[in-house]
Amino acid sequence: MSTLLFLELAEVVTGTSSAPEEGLRSGVGIAVENGRIAELAPDTELLARYPGAEVVRAGGAVATPGFVDSHTHALFGCWRAAEFALRSRGVSYMEIARRGGGINASVRDLRQRSEDELVEITRPRLREMLRHGTTTAEVKSGYGLTTEDELKMLRAIRRLDAEGPLDLVPTFLGAHEFPPEFRGSNRSDYVDLLVNEMIPAVAEAGLARFCDVFLEPGVFTPPEARRILEAGLAHGLLPKLHADELENSAGAELAAELHAVSADHLGAISDAGIRALARSRTVATLLPATLFFLGKKQHAPARRLVDAGAVVALATDFNPGSAPSPSMPLVLTIACASLGLDPLEAIVAATAGGARALALDDGRGTLAPGAPADLVLWDAADHREIPYRFGTNLVTAVWKRGLRVV
Amino acid sequence: MSTLLFLELAEVVTGTSSAPEEGLRSGVGIAVENGRIAELAPDTELLARYPGAEVVRAGGAVATPGFVDSHTHALFGCWRAAEFALRSRGVSYMEIARRGGGINASVRDLRQRSEDELVEITRPRLREMLRHGTTTAEVKSGYGLTTEDELKMLRAIRRLDAEGPLDLVPTFLGAHEFPPEFRGSNRSDYVDLLVNEMIPAVAEAGLARFCDVFLEPGVFTPPEARRILEAGLAHGLLPKLHADELENSAGAELAAELHAVSADHLGAISDAGIRALARSRTVATLLPATLFFLGKKQHAPARRLVDAGAVVALATDFNPGSAPSPSMPLVLTIACASLGLDPLEAIVAATAGGARALALDDGRGTLAPGAPADLVLWDAADHREIPYRFGTNLVTAVWKRGLRVV
Repeated sequence: MSTLLFLELAEVVTGTSSAPEEGLRSGVGIAVENGRIAELAPDTELLARYPGAEVVRAGGAVATPGFVDSHTHALFGCWRAAEFALRSRGVSYMEIARRGGGINASVRDLRQRSEDELVEITRPRLREMLRHGTTTAEVKSGYGLTTEDELKMLRAIRRLDAEGPLDLVPTFLGAHEFPPEFRGSNRSDYVDLLVNEMIPAVAEAGLARFCDVFLEPGVFTPPEARRILEAGLAHGLLPKLHADELENSAGAELAAELHAVSADHLGAISDAGIRALARSRTVATLLPATLFFLGKKQHAPARRLVDAGAVVALATDFNPGSAPSPSMPLVLTIACASLGLDPLEAIVAATAGGARALALDDGRGTLAPGAPADLVLWDAADHREIPYRFGTNLVTAVWKRGLRVV
Repeated sequence: MSTLLFLELAEVVTGTSSAPEEGLRSGVGIAVENGRIAELAPDTELLARYPGAEVVRAGGAVATPGFVDSHTHALFGCWRAAEFALRSRGVSYMEIARRGGGINASVRDLRQRSEDELVEITRPRLREMLRHGTTTAEVKSGYGLTTEDELKMLRAIRRLDAEGPLDLVPTFLGAHEFPPEFRGSNRSDYVDLLVNEMIPAVAEAGLARFCDVFLEPGVFTPPEARRILEAGLAHGLLPKLHADELENSAGAELAAELHAVSADHLGAISDAGIRALARSRTVATLLPATLFFLGKKQHAPARRLVDAGAVVALATDFNPGSAPSPSMPLVLTIACASLGLDPLEAIVAATAGGARALALDDGRGTLAPGAPADLVLWDAADHREIPYRFGTNLVTAVWKRGLRVV
C-alpha cells in the first residue's frame, strides 16, 4: 500500500488523552504508511520526508480518529416506530411490552428472517454509521433467544464484518430478555439453556468475543447475571454488563467484581458503583441517546465518573426500541449538553474509550503512530464544533486502514 | 410550468389536521400544476387525468409539506463553539456573558461584517436547512442593535430571500438585547431609539414583516416589550414575543393581550398563560432544541397547550448560542420524546403550525389543493419514522413551488 499525507488540517484530535496539551495538535499533518499512522509532523516536514506520497489537502478540516461505537444492537429486523408513537402519547414501555411490543416484538420478527435477509437489511444501517464517522462497532445478538437464532445473528454479524469496511466486534447477548416460551415459572430453564447450550455453541463456533447480560429489575437478576457471565468466561467470552440503566441493581459493583470489560448504561449508578468502577479496569460505557430518546430527565453521572477516575466510553446503543440512531456525533452533543463532559473528553470517550470498552489494543481510537489509519475529516473550524453544530452531519470524508470509504 | 405527478407514495401527510383521518392519506399520489398542488388522488386516476405530465416515482417514500421554520436567527457571523465548551464544564450563561460572550459576542462580530459577507456566510446554512426539509423560514435581525447594523441584517435577509429557493420571512428584533453602549442607567434611551428611529426606518424600507422582543428577566421587561410592540404595530409590523423561556414573566398573557401572531419559547409558561393562549389566536411556538442544547430538564408543556386548544408551532430557534442546529427533524424527535406530541401532531406543528405563526395564508405548510408545491420526500415507511429515526437525515428530495431543489 502507498503512503498518504493529510495536510492543511486545522486541528488533530489524537485520542490519546482528554488533556488538551496531549490530546489536541495543531500545525501538524498526518503521514499514513501501509494503513497505519506513521507520524504527526508539520506539513513541510512530511512533504520533505515522504516525497512520493499521495497528498490529501484537507483545506482546514479537523481530523479525529474514527469512532469506536462499543455498544450497539444494529442487527435487527423491523423498525418499531409505532411503539414510539404510542410512547409519545404517554403509553409506558411496560404497557407496550404487555401489548406484544418491546424486545419481544423484535424477537418474533427476527426469528422469521433468514441470515441472508438480516445481512441485507443491516448493511445500509452500517453504511449510515460509517457516514457519521464510526469505523469500528460492537454488535450484539439478543433478538433470537434460541440457540439457532442467536447463532444466525452472530453468523450475519461475521459476514458483515468480513464485507467491511466497518469492523464489527460481536457480542453474545442471549440474556437480553426471557423469550416468551420461557416467561413465568421456568425462568431458570432459560438460564440453563444459556449456560449449558448457547454459550458453548457460540464459543465453539468462535462467533463472539464478549458475553453480555441485561441486568435490570424485571429482566435478569444479579445472581442470574453472575452465573451467565461466569459461564461465558469459562468458555473464553469476556464479560460485559447492561447495568443500572433505569433502576439501581448494584450492577456497576457486580461488573467491577467480575472484572467485566465494561458496565453499560449507568443512568441509575450509585455512589458505591462509581467508586467500584473507579477502582477497577471496567470501562463505564454511557449511552446518553437512549435516555434522551426515552424522554427521561435522568442522565448517567459522566462528570463524577471521570472525576473519580473511571474510564468512560460513549456509544449509541443503536437499536429499534430505545435508540434508533446510528449517530455518534449526536451522542457527543448530549454528553456535552447534559452529562458534563467537555468536547474533547467526549470525543476521546467515543474513540479511545470505545476501544478500551472492546479490549482492542492495536491503538484503535487514536491517531498515534502505529494505530490503524481509521480517520475522519470534519467540516469544522475546531473539534468543539463537532458536538456543538448538532443535528447535521459534518463528516466530509472517512478513511478505514488508509483507504477512503466515505 | 409543466404538470408533475408524484406517484408510488407510501403515505402523504397533508398538514391540514393532526387527526389521522384527515391529516394522513395513503393510496394517493399528488398532482402539481404551475407550482401548486392540484389534487390528491389514486395514481391510476392521476395518470389518466394528466396524460402529458412529468412523473416522479417515489418508490414508497413518504411525502410531507416542506417545514415552515417560524423562529430562527440564521443570519449571524461566527459560530460560538468555545462558549459551548465552557458551558459543558458548568460555566453558566450569565458568567459567559460577563466574560464578553453570549448575544453581545455575536453583536460585536456582526457589526464588523459587511452585508455581502453576511450573505456569503449565511447561504450555506440556509442550504443545510433546505437539505433537512425546510422550505420557508423566518429570520430575525437582532445582532446589530444599531439602526444601520439592523438594516444591514434585514437587507442581507432580503437578498437571500430573493436568491431562493428557501423563502425567508424577515422579523425585526432590535429588542434582542441591550447593546453594550446602552447597558446600565440609560436603558430607556435604547427603547427610545427602537421606537423613534429603528422601527420607523425598518418599516419605511419595507424590510420586516414582524417586530419581536426578547422578554425575559435581565433582558426586556413587560412594559418595555409592550411599548416596543405597540410602536411596531403602529408602523405595520405585526407583533411576536420571546416569552417565558426560562422564567415566567407572564409573557404568554402579554402576547395574547397584544394579539401577537406568536408567543415563542414558553418553557416556563404558567397555567394562566396556557389559558390565555388557548383563548387567543396567538400561536404557541415551541423551540425544544434550545432547552435540549442548554441541558435543561424543563420543557414547554406542548401536550397541555394542545389539549387546552392552543395552536402550536415547532421551530428550530437556529442560532449560534443556544441552538446551533438547522434540523427540523430533530426538533420533531424532541417534541415526541419529551413534550408529549405524537408524530403527526409534531409534523403538523412544524408545517401548517409554522405557517400560522408567520401569518401565511396561501396554504403553505399543507399539501392541500391550491397550496404551493413545497414538498419533501422521506426515506421512511410511514410518517412516524421521521421523528423516530433520529440523528440522520432521511430527506431524499425537496421541491419548492414545483421545482426540485434538493
